[in-house]
Amino acid sequence: MQNELTYPDWIAVDWGTSNLRVWAMTAEGDVLAENGSDQGMSSVAPGEFEVTLLSHIAPWLGNDHTPVIACGMVGARQGWDEAPYRAVPTTPLGDIHVVPCKDSRISMHILPGLKQEKSADVMRGEETQIAGFLSENPGYDGILCLPGTHTKWAHISAGEVVSFQTFMTGEMFDLLSRESVLRHSIGEGGGLDHEAFLGAVSDTISRPEAVATQLFKVRAVDLLFGADQAVSRARLSGILLGLELSAARPYWLGQSVSLIGASALNALYAKALSAQGVSPSMHDVASTTLQGLSAAYKDLSSRA
Amino acid sequence: MQNELTYPDWIAVDWGTSNLRVWAMTAEGDVLAENGSDQGMSSVAPGEFEVTLLSHIAPWLGNDHTPVIACGMVGARQGWDEAPYRAVPTTPLGDIHVVPCKDSRISMHILPGLKQEKSADVMRGEETQIAGFLSENPGYDGILCLPGTHTKWAHISAGEVVSFQTFMTGEMFDLLSRESVLRHSIGEGGGLDHEAFLGAVSDTISRPEAVATQLFKVRAVDLLFGADQAVSRARLSGILLGLELSAARPYWLGQSVSLIGASALNALYAKALSAQGVSPSMHDVASTTLQGLSAAYKDLSSRA
Repeated sequence: MQNELTYPDWIAVDWGTSNLRVWAMTAEGDVLAENGSDQGMSSVAPGEFEVTLLSHIAPWLGNDHTPVIACGMVGARQGWDEAPYRAVPTTPLGDIHVVPCKDSRISMHILPGLKQEKSADVMRGEETQIAGFLSENPGYDGILCLPGTHTKWAHISAGEVVSFQTFMTGEMFDLLSRESVLRHSIGEGGGLDHEAFLGAVSDTISRPEAVATQLFKVRAVDLLFGADQAVSRARLSGILLGLELSAARPYWLGQSVSLIGASALNALYAKALSAQGVSPSMHDVASTTLQGLSAAYKDLSSRA
Repeated sequence: MQNELTYPDWIAVDWGTSNLRVWAMTAEGDVLAENGSDQGMSSVAPGEFEVTLLSHIAPWLGNDHTPVIACGMVGARQGWDEAPYRAVPTTPLGDIHVVPCKDSRISMHILPGLKQEKSADVMRGEETQIAGFLSENPGYDGILCLPGTHTKWAHISAGEVVSFQTFMTGEMFDLLSRESVLRHSIGEGGGLDHEAFLGAVSDTISRPEAVATQLFKVRAVDLLFGADQAVSRARLSGILLGLELSAARPYWLGQSVSLIGASALNALYAKALSAQGVSPSMHDVASTTLQGLSAAYKDLSSRA
């Protein structure tokens, strides 16, 4: 009997561009086991998705069908099987996409992303985090900010995603701090000077058009006067986040804002927003994702 | 006698971060021969600069001292020998830096870059192009724009560089078009849609703060509706150049502007500026650099 108990009722999968995470789940939403690797969507060859997934979950599979529910870029056109975008305004979950599998032990599902046609935008994966947040905060009316490589700002009302906008702030920070001339002043890893960060956020919000010239000044100030790497890093981060906040102003000005991200990134956004008079609540992205996948499982099993 | 005639009076060197170009010159400024390679400053080990230079110019050296005059990043702290920045406002040339050499056949000089302390900025190499332009246009009063990886805008008056600003537009375009998620929509090389370019420039100049969200839309529009690579490339280019023009407005609005750059880049800037009512003149960067090095040689030989 003890062995049988370890078989999960279903398996949750977060399959993004660069990482794969899997959880063995009970019907009640408890985690029995988890696994993961860097075999993200971009490193898996077409036709190899099922084999890759099985290599991570095989020990969890019994003789019965085990439902598998996945979110993220695995549902993109270049992924395992395209789960077509659903148009906003809409609930974050719906039209779950069934993927045919060779292995009869699993029944595979992918959660579709969302699209916005009027002011063109797309998300894949964040809709599941939004669903997880709403399952914990069912009456939420306000703004969700999901910081990451491509940060999303979403307006939530009556259980629906009304509109959203994507910002490449995280990816720009990575590229500029690692690959551009600024890398000489920023170095690898290390701290972030809070005062320099807030100063750069505030300067950029007041004069967003100056970004193009402020970026090179990070290097020039260091060359002429010397600058601590933590100060240079903070200035680059503050300039880019200031530009994002400047464009996202209609989303946060006078609004109730909740952040869903990794804790360090949440803290950075909260610091910048607090200086603008906004006090966001903070939510961990990993548990929110799992809550969203669990919400999708409940939908699925209630219809079975 | 014929062999003697081929020995140059001096040697001009443009030694940037990624390329090295050398010219065998007559005292009158005529080119007898030229050579070049990708042995830019960043690929030469400390202590190997003299050997690297000699491998490119050895056939041009006679028994006498041959003056060599170089500009560019070779004079940076990480280069051959640091030629300290000169502070603006100042003439583009001055305080030529003498570098001790082991080989007695050459006497080596590096032209210093310029620095601006109040609104921190630096240039190395562009000061020589400015000197070349002024040697052809001695009474010029107006704006020089030097498009490149790091575009410089400089205010020129009474033969001096009064102030300047650097924009990382070229480097950002390279990073975003080759390394970011936008690469999937932009592809390799190819054309640039003029209408999409001018539209993006104009949109960004009217709403510079929207840049942070417009960037991801280049990808989203392609995903949702399909977009030609030449259109996506034009939109990215127009967004970034629009942001630069927005910040550089005091430099071009109602001003006389001359462009010094590679011909394709000059044409792109001229197109964007023309749409703003500015009609810049265009000057080739290679010949302007050589004119600047020639002006430095004249200064040097008049003092000898």
